[in-house]
Amino acid sequence: MDLKPTKPLSGFIELLPSQQRCFDYCAAKMQNVLRLAGFSMLDLPAIERAEVLTDKDNWDEIETQMFLFQKGDTKMGLRYDGTVGLSRYVAGHLNDLVFPFRASQFSKRYRGERAQRGRYREFYQMDLDIMGINSLSTNYDAEIISVISRALDSVNEFIGPNVVHVGSRPFWDALFDYLEMNADQKKSVFVLIDKKDKMGDEDFAEGLKEALNNTDKENVIKSVFVDGYENFVGKSEKLDAAIAELTDFMKVLDGMGVKNAKIDLSIARGLAYYTGLVFEFKLTDHPELGTAAGGGRYENLASKFSKTKIVGVGAAIGFSRIFASMLENNQIDLTRFLNPVDVAVLVMGNNNVAYASGVVNSLRDAGIVAVSYLDTDKKFKNQIEYADKIGAKFAAIIGDDEVAKNVIALKNMESGNQETVSVADAIKNIKVK
Amino acid sequence: MDLKPTKPLSGFIELLPSQQRCFDYCAAKMQNVLRLAGFSMLDLPAIERAEVLTDKDNWDEIETQMFLFQKGDTKMGLRYDGTVGLSRYVAGHLNDLVFPFRASQFSKRYRGERAQRGRYREFYQMDLDIMGINSLSTNYDAEIISVISRALDSVNEFIGPNVVHVGSRPFWDALFDYLEMNADQKKSVFVLIDKKDKMGDEDFAEGLKEALNNTDKENVIKSVFVDGYENFVGKSEKLDAAIAELTDFMKVLDGMGVKNAKIDLSIARGLAYYTGLVFEFKLTDHPELGTAAGGGRYENLASKFSKTKIVGVGAAIGFSRIFASMLENNQIDLTRFLNPVDVAVLVMGNNNVAYASGVVNSLRDAGIVAVSYLDTDKKFKNQIEYADKIGAKFAAIIGDDEVAKNVIALKNMESGNQETVSVADAIKNIKVK
Repeated sequence: MDLKPTKPLSGFIELLPSQQRCFDYCAAKMQNVLRLAGFSMLDLPAIERAEVLTDKDNWDEIETQMFLFQKGDTKMGLRYDGTVGLSRYVAGHLNDLVFPFRASQFSKRYRGERAQRGRYREFYQMDLDIMGINSLSTNYDAEIISVISRALDSVNEFIGPNVVHVGSRPFWDALFDYLEMNADQKKSVFVLIDKKDKMGDEDFAEGLKEALNNTDKENVIKSVFVDGYENFVGKSEKLDAAIAELTDFMKVLDGMGVKNAKIDLSIARGLAYYTGLVFEFKLTDHPELGTAAGGGRYENLASKFSKTKIVGVGAAIGFSRIFASMLENNQIDLTRFLNPVDVAVLVMGNNNVAYASGVVNSLRDAGIVAVSYLDTDKKFKNQIEYADKIGAKFAAIIGDDEVAKNVIALKNMESGNQETVSVADAIKNIKVK
Repeated sequence: MDLKPTKPLSGFIELLPSQQRCFDYCAAKMQNVLRLAGFSMLDLPAIERAEVLTDKDNWDEIETQMFLFQKGDTKMGLRYDGTVGLSRYVAGHLNDLVFPFRASQFSKRYRGERAQRGRYREFYQMDLDIMGINSLSTNYDAEIISVISRALDSVNEFIGPNVVHVGSRPFWDALFDYLEMNADQKKSVFVLIDKKDKMGDEDFAEGLKEALNNTDKENVIKSVFVDGYENFVGKSEKLDAAIAELTDFMKVLDGMGVKNAKIDLSIARGLAYYTGLVFEFKLTDHPELGTAAGGGRYENLASKFSKTKIVGVGAAIGFSRIFASMLENNQIDLTRFLNPVDVAVLVMGNNNVAYASGVVNSLRDAGIVAVSYLDTDKKFKNQIEYADKIGAKFAAIIGDDEVAKNVIALKNMESGNQETVSVADAIKNIKVK
């Protein structure tokens, strides 16, 4: 019989145990930051009705990008982000939740598109959303940024420092109005701005020319990426309002202790649902990872599901994008995750299993990671080799003598020192280590 | 526009925040038991190649039971258990792992079949496997049972006590040989034994008659469910070996401190891959949940992927089956999971956001769950109502006076007492509570 492939499908992540321990450690650290900020952890289904995942008018596009399937009469698919499920959930539980409601989801998402280098088809994101009914202060946008910053800081020993770039959708709306652009032009130019980083300056200029065919207007738009917003103060009420919102917001951010923020009007965050301030986090030491987290303000999260207007601010941290990628590229020192075992308990002879198990249970009850070697007919040499291979800090050796005297022989695997001790003393010795 | 449905698809689980906190708490408790027993936590892809999920000869059957889809030329699907991915992973990493290798997976699995009452289409299982190369002592089977028992015990305040029933595939093999049954008869009768609980005594007797058409043999098989193995001691060498293995095993289990185990030869665990001892856990107080966990010994886990013989013992805890089901049926007292917030920080006036944020950061740094209310133009009445609604133990009220004096007004939400304190003292007060 031919053997089947042992590699996972391309675009899917599979870590070794020590890598996984690091991944899980970072997730737990970051989730604890979110928990202390009062975010409720939600765990929603990975499968949604197709009609929930998408509107029918963009079906073809979505069909190529998603994992879709049918059971009976029901078309369904795997979620591609956390927002679609969240909006359904919140709309369905308006009376069960207290608003402003803080929700977080740390879960797998799926993209069915062809796997490319650095693009995963199954990946974790860590979402944060704060939602209000009808209105919500932009202070909450700052709060989300502050919490993400603290979450990333909590694992900065692995990923280094972070910065956040803040943009404004209302600024562009106001500028487009000031330039008297029509609806088609607005849409085309916004698409260009969103893709500017990927397309480069020349193609961007070309695109602007095609959309506007007006050198003055083209130059005004280009100037934003060089000079920022300063030149537009006093040009229109709408521009002034947008600029004031943005500059006030930066003061709030600073007041919240976020010192690594800057205005960057090139941040656009796509066409989908953001309507206000938008932001992106980058890791200073890892430009190759691109955007580490991103989000913004939305005006009506759940309009497909409810007549109640849910206003909010949300963001997703690209958890796999950061950690799976860095782990796969050996960019994280795994030393402290290599040897999780405190004690290997070696049992000489099957008569001693019961005694050894009592020892094992006592060690585990004391919070010590204890792994028993239970092929009791194996020679001492094989057993101690196992203790060495799993990187155990100690070996607890149990033979007839130890059982008779109600003790264990505790060997420090690093120094090689061995002493005969009671279980209680062994626990003390191991915990000191 | 018609509103879309807010309910998840049938067979999918969606919990409220307090339910989710209980679910996550129990998962963390149980996973800690596994971690202390040296199990490595693996997180494998939820999507596998179709050829990995199934052999081609049972394609039709599997197609109706699974979520399958195609991308380009590749047929793939969602995993229905943890074993299929584990066997691929272990076969692909023989040189990266130390054997006996202890692995655990806490992950979502999927069944595409029609949703029925109490059957989920997306559900969590918590797997434990211990794998050796070529051989592995049955002591490890006892170790797995011991660890599961301790994991279930760690959450017994919610689910009550557990018992484990131990069966033996070799016993039935030996008995079938002793009764001189042919291959077809062996298979048919084993299927009947596996389904006996569901089909009832009458249908079982009918099935036996159809398969064997021999009253003596039928009665012998039926007698096992009444009298157990005792009458078969000394009948054949193979029977004696199987019985000795089982009775010795029960002594090892007892020695390991598993006092709630009993022999139950009706435990069969399906036709798939188990070859030795098998076991099922039940929750004494929750017979309605059926099997809470089950597993057994397999002789060659990864034969589809590797020529190396991987012998092991594995089990799955039906985590969603237990906890989602009990939570959905309100069988768990959620009192302690209702109010996770220690302090609601109420901010009177937007000038005070920066000061309040400093307070919030200090509280969170001290490990206190602090939720800020940032719609600063809302009246005190609205803000304190929010603190009450989210069940905060304290409200930290911050207005111009508090900022001027560098203090906070700390209100105990239960007693109604309020005092003006420094942030450091507030932290002490809240931590004592």
